[in-house]
Amino acid sequence: MVSNTASAAPAAGKIVHHVFFWLKNPESVADRDALIAGLRELAKIDVIRDLQIGVPASTEQRDVVDSSFQVSELMVFDTVVDQKTYQDHPLHKAFVAKCEHLWRKVIVYDMRTV
Amino acid sequence: MVSNTASAAPAAGKIVHHVFFWLKNPESVADRDALIAGLRELAKIDVIRDLQIGVPASTEQRDVVDSSFQVSELMVFDTVVDQKTYQDHPLHKAFVAKCEHLWRKVIVYDMRTV
Repeated sequence: MVSNTASAAPAAGKIVHHVFFWLKNPESVADRDALIAGLRELAKIDVIRDLQIGVPASTEQRDVVDSSFQVSELMVFDTVVDQKTYQDHPLHKAFVAKCEHLWRKVIVYDMRTV
Repeated sequence: MVSNTASAAPAAGKIVHHVFFWLKNPESVADRDALIAGLRELAKIDVIRDLQIGVPASTEQRDVVDSSFQVSELMVFDTVVDQKTYQDHPLHKAFVAKCEHLWRKVIVYDMRTV
């Protein structure tokens, strides 16, 4: 179970799962769109409370901003158990099998809201 | 203005601003809580549509998961113009002035939802 020791903010204790993808062919719009299409299929997995898919925004380029990724996926889960259910879900495994040839690097950040 | 060339997903074209902080004293709960308290003050900035603050979740440790940060801040804006308004806002500058001694590294990812 999720331990929530912090304040009474409305969404405290949610799991935010944020994944950044760097493509093997970073200039390929077709590869980018294939990955985005694959990610949209994940919305069928019922433990996902929110799913946002993104590309780098045209915000100001500062030293601390990493805009080198091509695609990003942001999901919200109620618990770490639900996140694990997603991780092991057949639709997630099918997505990885179908799309992993597209990327060269992935970084995942999982946070628990406080 | 934000260009939105993708599907009709409900939140397409929003700006998601995700910041990860590595503390100078990563074991200090006091420093972590001081940073979290500083981040909560940012909620007063009216261009922010959503603000979530987090700490590393106890999800499965896989090679691709970076759980080395101590605190994370996730914000949503309607446009890149609003994100810039936030960046230059006196309350944001006051937060940096008050809290920047706490961190040794920051990484920012800005994505536009599609």
